Amino acid sequence: MDILRITSTQNPRIKHLMALQQKAQLRRSEQLIVVEGARELQHCINAGFKVETVIYCPALFSIGNLNVAKAEMVEVTPQVYDKIAYRGSTEGVMAIVQPRQLALSDISLGDNPLIVVLEGVEKPGNIGAVLRSADAAHATSVIVCDPLTDLYNPNLIRSSIGAIFTVPCVACTSDECISFLKDNNISILTAQLQDSEPYYDTPMRGATAIVMGTEATGLTNAWREAATAHIRIPMQGQLDSLNVSVSTAILLFEAVRQRQSNI
Amino acid sequence: MDILRITSTQNPRIKHLMALQQKAQLRRSEQLIVVEGARELQHCINAGFKVETVIYCPALFSIGNLNVAKAEMVEVTPQVYDKIAYRGSTEGVMAIVQPRQLALSDISLGDNPLIVVLEGVEKPGNIGAVLRSADAAHATSVIVCDPLTDLYNPNLIRSSIGAIFTVPCVACTSDECISFLKDNNISILTAQLQDSEPYYDTPMRGATAIVMGTEATGLTNAWREAATAHIRIPMQGQLDSLNVSVSTAILLFEAVRQRQSNI
Repeated sequence: MDILRITSTQNPRIKHLMALQQKAQLRRSEQLIVVEGARELQHCINAGFKVETVIYCPALFSIGNLNVAKAEMVEVTPQVYDKIAYRGSTEGVMAIVQPRQLALSDISLGDNPLIVVLEGVEKPGNIGAVLRSADAAHATSVIVCDPLTDLYNPNLIRSSIGAIFTVPCVACTSDECISFLKDNNISILTAQLQDSEPYYDTPMRGATAIVMGTEATGLTNAWREAATAHIRIPMQGQLDSLNVSVSTAILLFEAVRQRQSNI
Repeated sequence: MDILRITSTQNPRIKHLMALQQKAQLRRSEQLIVVEGARELQHCINAGFKVETVIYCPALFSIGNLNVAKAEMVEVTPQVYDKIAYRGSTEGVMAIVQPRQLALSDISLGDNPLIVVLEGVEKPGNIGAVLRSADAAHATSVIVCDPLTDLYNPNLIRSSIGAIFTVPCVACTSDECISFLKDNNISILTAQLQDSEPYYDTPMRGATAIVMGTEATGLTNAWREAATAHIRIPMQGQLDSLNVSVSTAILLFEAVRQRQSNI
């Protein structure tokens, strides 16, 4: 296998890689994303994504265990890797990968779907954290409505620790999502503090979508009106909100509990 | 009321403030902490902490609503505030405050305590996020064992959004904490993947402590052996762990659910 070796941070390939990391528009137009970190890349490979190029630093990462026979391999020096590492990562490996753009019709609903819907959630780190919980809960899908960030933002990939590759994730409009859920007889449970019941008094054993808005403004009226039930996490302290990834995990695992608990 | 005005980032008062932000040892020796952000400071004041100095930028923050009559007031320019703001905060207010060092004996257990114990959790942001959930669940206390960060680390205060002031928070050794819990007949539920039962099959209606270790190494044997029960969040996906603040929230709110649900 031929291995390209790059020793200069001014190499055009390195500049192209950094542009892909930084520019969502370039990722869209070239249909390429950058996956950084050993665990993230392993989940990406396991999920069958097509890896075009693996960039690694032999001083930091042993390429032996990575099963990417068809990808181009690029070795870089520690200096070059330090330049391209997105945020203090020292794992020494990243890759350029073809993304998947799933549509709602691509979701395999199975016989008892459990879906997370995020409306207008802005921070890539929060979406990544939700994906991590969705993986653990074996959620059917995470649907991001009216997204303000692209699903393959490097921060999102990192904070998901690769769950962006293990959980079917769809971006669409709220209208499309509401129609999809209604057409498939999936209960729409919207998280909102007003006009709502405690989440633990709400049945989630059947086909369920848990719908979360932003911490700042909550859900839009379209969702509130489409809801089967409004649910809330009772806030018993002095603060008025939880982080959206924490709230989502509490609600998601309540659905898991109702479906699996023995007591 | 006299107001001191500072226009230079080289002012010794500004240098002292920045040293307090950056150096845990200085915070300890002077028994002073820095609280940044409007919400954080409001929770701190509401909880009765003694505020020594309020530093604010009139262009960013209106001091009128803050009830801190006995504190020294310092106005700074936007340039100075930009220098001292810990991380991109534009709220324009911070304060120098006397910390509280609570001991285990200071905890008011009430008639049915619900306690969170964190062993060896390193990241201030994770401890802050746990405190935020503990506030929402109205937990009795958060006990940080063998802490690797001080409780008044600026990042911890910020990520807690002030919950460090609303939730009684104690730092001690694991041995002290285990003795305290046993002496008070509080069930010790340790989160661990091995030799454990699903958390939702574990009773948490009585006096309960939920004990969390680090994502990397989990809990030490001292805790595993002291446990009343070992509990786990079943991991049904391809990733092998959840963020510790997410795990803690799931377990804490299961205790809330068991205590409060109508079904």
